[in-house]
Formats: sequence, structure tokens, C-alpha cells
Amino acid sequence: MKIALAQVNCHIGNFESNSAKFISIIHEAMSGGAHLVVFPELAVSGYPPLDFLDYHHFTAECLHAVEQIAEHCTGITVIMGSPSFNPVKEGKNLFNSAFVLSNGKISQVVHKTLLPTYDVFDEYRYFEPNHEFSCIEVNGEKIALTICEDLWNEEDDPMYRFSPMDKLIPEKPTLIINIAASPFDYAHAEKRKAILKRNAEKFSLPLVYVNHTGAQTDLIFDGGSLFMNAKGEVVQELKYFEEDIQIIDTAQPEFRTPSVAASKFERIHQALVLGIRDYFTKLNFKQATLGLSGGVDSALVLALAVEALGKENVIPVMMPSPFSSGHSVDDSVELAKNLGVDAVKIPIENIYNEFINAADPFFKGKPFDVAEENIQARIRGTLVMALANKHGYVLLNTSNKSELAVGYGTLYGDMAGGLSVIGDLYKTEVYELCRYINRNGEIIPENILTKAPSAELRPGQKDSDSLPEYDLLDSVLRLYIEGQLGYDQILQQGYDEKLVSRVLQMVNRNEYKRFQFAPILRVSPKAFGRGRRMPLVAKYLG
Amino acid sequence: MKIALAQVNCHIGNFESNSAKFISIIHEAMSGGAHLVVFPELAVSGYPPLDFLDYHHFTAECLHAVEQIAEHCTGITVIMGSPSFNPVKEGKNLFNSAFVLSNGKISQVVHKTLLPTYDVFDEYRYFEPNHEFSCIEVNGEKIALTICEDLWNEEDDPMYRFSPMDKLIPEKPTLIINIAASPFDYAHAEKRKAILKRNAEKFSLPLVYVNHTGAQTDLIFDGGSLFMNAKGEVVQELKYFEEDIQIIDTAQPEFRTPSVAASKFERIHQALVLGIRDYFTKLNFKQATLGLSGGVDSALVLALAVEALGKENVIPVMMPSPFSSGHSVDDSVELAKNLGVDAVKIPIENIYNEFINAADPFFKGKPFDVAEENIQARIRGTLVMALANKHGYVLLNTSNKSELAVGYGTLYGDMAGGLSVIGDLYKTEVYELCRYINRNGEIIPENILTKAPSAELRPGQKDSDSLPEYDLLDSVLRLYIEGQLGYDQILQQGYDEKLVSRVLQMVNRNEYKRFQFAPILRVSPKAFGRGRRMPLVAKYLG
Repeated sequence: MKIALAQVNCHIGNFESNSAKFISIIHEAMSGGAHLVVFPELAVSGYPPLDFLDYHHFTAECLHAVEQIAEHCTGITVIMGSPSFNPVKEGKNLFNSAFVLSNGKISQVVHKTLLPTYDVFDEYRYFEPNHEFSCIEVNGEKIALTICEDLWNEEDDPMYRFSPMDKLIPEKPTLIINIAASPFDYAHAEKRKAILKRNAEKFSLPLVYVNHTGAQTDLIFDGGSLFMNAKGEVVQELKYFEEDIQIIDTAQPEFRTPSVAASKFERIHQALVLGIRDYFTKLNFKQATLGLSGGVDSALVLALAVEALGKENVIPVMMPSPFSSGHSVDDSVELAKNLGVDAVKIPIENIYNEFINAADPFFKGKPFDVAEENIQARIRGTLVMALANKHGYVLLNTSNKSELAVGYGTLYGDMAGGLSVIGDLYKTEVYELCRYINRNGEIIPENILTKAPSAELRPGQKDSDSLPEYDLLDSVLRLYIEGQLGYDQILQQGYDEKLVSRVLQMVNRNEYKRFQFAPILRVSPKAFGRGRRMPLVAKYLG
Repeated sequence: MKIALAQVNCHIGNFESNSAKFISIIHEAMSGGAHLVVFPELAVSGYPPLDFLDYHHFTAECLHAVEQIAEHCTGITVIMGSPSFNPVKEGKNLFNSAFVLSNGKISQVVHKTLLPTYDVFDEYRYFEPNHEFSCIEVNGEKIALTICEDLWNEEDDPMYRFSPMDKLIPEKPTLIINIAASPFDYAHAEKRKAILKRNAEKFSLPLVYVNHTGAQTDLIFDGGSLFMNAKGEVVQELKYFEEDIQIIDTAQPEFRTPSVAASKFERIHQALVLGIRDYFTKLNFKQATLGLSGGVDSALVLALAVEALGKENVIPVMMPSPFSSGHSVDDSVELAKNLGVDAVKIPIENIYNEFINAADPFFKGKPFDVAEENIQARIRGTLVMALANKHGYVLLNTSNKSELAVGYGTLYGDMAGGLSVIGDLYKTEVYELCRYINRNGEIIPENILTKAPSAELRPGQKDSDSLPEYDLLDSVLRLYIEGQLGYDQILQQGYDEKLVSRVLQMVNRNEYKRFQFAPILRVSPKAFGRGRRMPLVAKYLG
């Protein structure tokens, strides 16, 4: 059987554009001789639709779109992901379903059994798990049709009490199809392939896997749809980070050169560029602004934004203060020149002095401290937002994961912005990605990469005055945030007591700042944001 | 049997203070002749512990605390809510459990079956549902011990496929005990009593219900623990919005005067005062600041803050601009006088002029618009945050639900603050609560309540220039947000097409602002924040 794998980039809630795209793909696949076209999980709505699903009419619109698409399915079968209503009174009101469309109508429906409800996933918030199991038949193939997590019940620590494949195998299927919405992180592609391989091997069945591509606010979908033979070998693999439609032939599996395994930072680079681009395109914005400090974070965000949006669409703003070093502006100017963008320069000294004049009587003679530092950061936030408001730009945030973790940033100041581009990259990873961007020649000036990091909010300030060195800080943060280890367990890895206690306290005391932060493009297995929900008012453990 | 209902206010993660409190209550109950003490759901950890539960050592600490508490349980039995580890490999790693403590040790454990995963609840994110059912025995009573949602499977549209009571009834229990963590909204107490009554009546069993009290960031627990007879009549009811321990006697149910049913705004008033107070107490903050505009929202927040924290602990800041009317400052001064607080006054004109000087060359001759308005709001945000940073105050936010809904507010300006006090009150409800506060004499000056609402960000501006009248706006918002009705369904209620379309568009286009907003004290059945999760990048219906 010839199957078209339709790895699409959907726009959540945009039934018109999604359906038009799907219908055109179906007709093309038909011309290409496909018997079956497979779209990803919840393709009709886009993923994740979140609390749109609490609105009855949203699911009704999804089903209406499915019916309209079905009318185009004559001479071909289509598998299409969509929410559907649970006809039974008991249980949640919706299913996460795969519709089988043929002969111009809906011929079968299969529901998702295992509903991921952890990290960024909230599926049991909306959906009833499937309770009835049967394979579908298309062109003589008996297909175990599953939806994403349905194949992910890991054997060493299964999160669910059974796997739907155990219920489907007695029907002797000849093929597994899995439609998915499996978001990117830098380690995900290998994990995904290993899980799919384990299923193919365990059941000695070939496997078709179709994932989304494209970014949905914070979540980036990398595609990587594939066809695997019954030995778990990848026969054909679709592109990463872009829409791709390929036809495979289950009868004549023909090995094609698989996509070259990209390096961690090559992947992250592609993911972030896609993340920025889709945020703007899907929200119908065109131009971005950002504060350009002369430091490595804003340099990286500028380089990524120029790549995603074009140099004519990025307006960086330099806002030196009396505490800014001369090289901050020089380095920024050189960077802007390398990227071919015009940087705007607005000194903040006069505004800062007026703020101090106004506030000083109420500072009650207390010495210069974080209050004055934050005023500078907030003046910058206000200025760059003023340009954004006046001209319809979106402010890109430039905070990195290390500083977000320890609260080394000013709410409403440098923490402002509509989208956090590198908020899931530790400072050490920021440097690595800059080096990757410079791989074919200097884009980010060497001086930005080698000088000591500084917020430049008081004379001679360095990040290392307030924070541990970043390589040490990042390794403790990784154990606490990604590793979910406690104080004692981190100590057991050989770290200094004082250091660990200080780092953990900084992370915990700054949950309130992250709570008010922009959505963060997610590139790691545990990003701040919707995938990590900590209490604000609480006593944290050591 | 004599049962002590221990309606406690827990501090999430503070095992030391929680356990000390519980142990002292147990000893008191013993002196009072109680055979059994019942604590609420997840009392040991506080509710909701959120992703603390992803940390293995957190649950280990909970269990350690339970064991320590058990040592005090000789001559008395205690029911204590705590997470526990799932000993079986299959399924999630934790249960939401009720531990039965007697003879100095853990004698039995019961797990929660129905795991609320909707609105503000995420329980299936962490917990495996219970699969085994049996009653517990205490002093000859056979008790159907259930945990909160276990009794909430509503008969008209059950969210779950069965109810644990159906499994327990064959054992012929003589009493139902339900330990709960059931957060307040202004309509919740009646709903809760109706559900409990339905259970008592259906099974002809008396029922003991023990809830939390106290605020946990956005969630406020109102207590309302009770003892109901087998006819579903409330025999004894604990206090609302405060800690309360009462002993009931199942053998001699004696009707006590139930708590008087408070009015909607009496409840909201108590809830908000508790919400502010617990935020400060549990985070170890003492003093609050807020911007005082002369409008009704900041007036209300000031009055509530003074009640919660004491007049010496609230520092309101007036920040008039050239666009502020004379009465703004006069009204604010009168309000401050009525409340006995000292208001600080910092005019913003000079700072504003410096901003305009700095930004004007980059405004490219475009006319005065929202950019200049936002500069004013952000200057105020920066000033009041400067005072907060300098003196360790917490900035209270004064936005109401109507303006949050339609985006009539400035990110990083008047939308700044660590806690949103009235972000779950529509503008019309803000007025009603002010009238309630003035019930025994004028606290909030009449002129604040009668003048036309205005942001005063341009000459002669009124809210009604940009927004529908608030009574109309609020009624449409209520249908869309609480009612979860779509465009067509709202039209069917007789509203004007253009109005509905405009309001819905404003709500949808401003999800990005609310995403970066402070936690909101929740008083309605559907508050913005963790209970309403909408996509940011999406095409919205209608």
C-alpha cells in the first residue's frame, strides 16, 4: 500500500487555512498514487488547542471541518486527527480521535487511550481515555491505529496500567500507524526513534509515524515523521523543522538516505528560528525589536531574529547608561553591522536622573542598591516597549535560562517581551549556540564571546559578583531543574553545600518572577513555563 | 463516636510548622474526648503542592512527617491526607492518600479514586487513581473514607465512569468521611452542600466533611467543614475563612446554629482579606504598596489591604500626570484619610517629558497614541516598584477582571504587581464590593463611586470612549468566560452582533497580556490564571 505521510504545520483554530491545506495535500497524494494519507494528531484543530476544548462549539467546528474534508476522500482513504464528542454520558465529554475518511465520509473513528498529563501536556484535562479496541482496515491491510502516547508506555516504569497495542495485537494487524503531536527538545528525536523501534521490534510490524511540524507559541514541533520496517530500521524519514509530504510503499520498502543526525546546537538553532518565525507569521506580526546591551544574550537573539524575520524587520535598540562600558556600544555596533541591521541608540541618563530626583525623597537615605539597578532596566523596558507600541513591533525577550532560574533579571525591565527566544538555554549553552552561529565566519563579534558577562547596572559590575561561575551554576541548575534532584541528592554528586543551598534558594525564591514571564521557546526536556508549575507561596525544601 | 474536625490552614512544604500544628490539635482533641481526628486532603504537604510532587524527596518528606505524627496517635485515631508512593510499577508513581494513624503507627491507607483535572486542578498530572476499595474501621464504625472529588461524580453529567461509593456500599458502612481541598468561589458553598447532601441522602448515611481553610497564592480555601445526618441535614458546621476545630458526636447529633449564609459580597470580602493576609504571612512579607489613581479599583484594593495588613503596613502612592484631573488627587487624599494611611505623592510629569524627549526622534512624527499612554503607566509601575524594591514592600496590583479581559491595561505598567487582589471581580462587582465596604459608613468616598471611570492617560479620557458601558460589557464577558459560550450562542441571548464580536476579539487578542500577569485571588468559578489556559498563537473563533 502506498501511504502519504503528511507532516503539516497547522494554525490552531484556523479551520479555513488548515482544511484548505489538507484538501490540497489529499488531491496531490491521490495524483501521486497514494492509497492512504495520514495527518498528525489533532491536525484539524492544531495542537495544543488547550481550553478551546472547553468550548462546545470549538469541537463542533472541528467535526464540521472533518466532514468537509471527508467529501474529498473518494478513491483514497485519509486518517485525520480531531477531537470528538464522547457519546456516552459517563466520563469526560471529549475524545482525542483519529478519523478514518473514505468514500466521501467518515468510515471509522479510533480514540486515544493513553493521555499524557505531565510536563507541558494536559490531555486528561479534556479527554476521556479510549475503552474499546479494534484495528482498522484499509486496502486489505489491518492497521493498529494509535495516537502518539499510545505507543509510549515505557517498559521500565510504565505510566499506564496497560498499552492499547496489547489489546490490538490479538486481531493480528499487519501495520502500526501512529499519529502524533510530539514536541521538540534537543534530545527528543533519539528517544522517539528508540520508542518507535521498540514497538516495531516487539510486535514485528512495520510502523508509520506522522508528527506535526511548526511552532505553537512555546512548543516547537520538529516533524521527523518516518516509516520503519518490522525490524525497527528507519526506511524513510521526513524532513525536520519543515512541512514535508512523502509517499512510502509498504509493499516495497526502499531505503532512502535518512536525514543526517543534526548536532544538538544545529537542532536548537533550527528550532529557535522556526519558533520566532511561526510566532510572527501566525499572529500576523512582521517586525521585532529588542534591547541590545552589548552582551552575549541579546547578540544571540538578534542574530536569530534576523535569520527568522529578515534584517529589514528587526530593530535593535541600544540604551546605554552612565554605567555602560564603552565596549558595550562598540560591540553592539559591530554586531549590527555584521548582520546588516540599523541599531537605534537612546541614552537613558536623563530619564534615569529624573527618576532618581522623583524617587529620592522616598528612598529615605538608603544606599544605592537593586532599586536603582532595576530603575535602569525598567527605563529600557519602557523605551523599547514605546517603540514597539508606536510601530507595531513585538519585543523579543533576551533572558537566558540561568538568569531566569536564579532571578538575575528585572521584572518589567529586561524580563519584558512578548516571546522569550533563549529562555530555555543555560548561559553556557548560549555561548555554544553563538559559536555554532559563527561556524562559517564571525557574525557575533569575538569580544562579545570572550568578555566577562555583566549587567552593567553599577560601576564595574560583573555577573560573577552575584552568581557562581556559569559552568558551575549551570551544572547545579541542570540537576535541580531537569534532574528533579533535591538538595541532599545534589550534594551526593560532590557539590559544595553552600553553593547548592544558595543556588536552590535563588531558584525557589524567584518563582514569582518566572510566573509573570513571557512564553519561552522550549528546546530542553524541562523548560520553565507551562511544563514546570511550582507553588509561589510555599516553603521550599533545602 | 466523637470526631474532631480539624479545619486547618497549612503552609505548602512547611512540614515543620504543619506537623507541629497537627500534633498539638491531636493532643487537644484527645483531651476533649475525641476518638478520631480528621484532617483535610494533602494536609501534610498543603494543597496544591503542584510540581513539588515531581520531586521524589518531597513525597518522602511527606511520609516522614506522617510517621512522626503517627507516633502521637495512641489512644486516638487520626485521618491525615498525604501523597504516597504507588508500590506497583504500572501507573503513575504517586497516590493522593488518606492515612489512618492509630496505636502509634500507620494502620491503613486509602487512595483517591476520582482525580479532578480541569479548571485549577491538575491531579492526574501527579496521581494514579485508586483501583482497590474497602472501608476502614474506627471504634466499631465502618467508615467509607473518601477524598474530595470521590463524592463529586455528578449524576446528570458524570465526569467519571463510576463512583467509589458504589464499590464501598456493599461493605455496609455506617458513616461517610470526606477529606477535601475544595477552593472557594462565591457560589461554591451551596454547590458543595448540595453534593454532600445528595450523597448522604442517596446512601442514607451521616457524613463528615473536612476542608482546608487559608489562601495558597491564588486559591482561597473557605473551610465550611461540617457534619451532616443521614437525611442530609447539616447538624454542625465549622467557621468560614478561618481555622476551626470542633468535636462532633455521631451517636448524639445535636443541631447547632449553623453559620449564617453570608451574602456574595460578604464572602468575597472575607476571601480577599484572607487572600492578601496569607500571601504576606506565608511569604514573610509585611508591607504593601500600590498606585492610588483616584479611581474605584485602587480605592478598593487599598481598603482591603489596610484591613488585611494594618494601616501602618500599606503605603499607597499617588502619581499624578498632566492628564490627571484635580479630583483624582483630592479623592485619593480623602480615601487615605478615611483609612488612616499616609499616601505618598510623586508627580510624573518631568519623567514623562524626558521619556518623550528621548523617544520622540524614533516616533517618526506619528501622533499621540497608546505608546504615550503606556509610557505614563510604565513610569508609574517603575516608580512604585522602586519604592517596593528599596523598602521590601510587595506591590499589590489593582486591575479588575473586566479590564484584564479586554486588555484595557498596560503590561509592565498598571498590570505590574506581585498579587492581583481584584483581578477576578468584574468592574460592576468592584462597585458592589465598595458599597459593601461602605455599609456602615463612608470609607470609600462617594465621588469615587459616582464619577465616570477613566484611565486619565489623555485629556478628558473616559473608559467608555474605548469600551462598552460596563454593565453591558460584563454581561457579555460573563457569558464568554464563565459560560463558555461561543459567538453564535451569545448572539442568541439577544446581544448586538457588533458588540459581541468586538468584545470577544478584545478578550482573545489579549491572552498574551494575561499570560504575563500576577496570580489572581480566585473568587469566581472561572478566574483568569491557572484555571483558564488558552492558546496565545491561534486564530480564535468569532
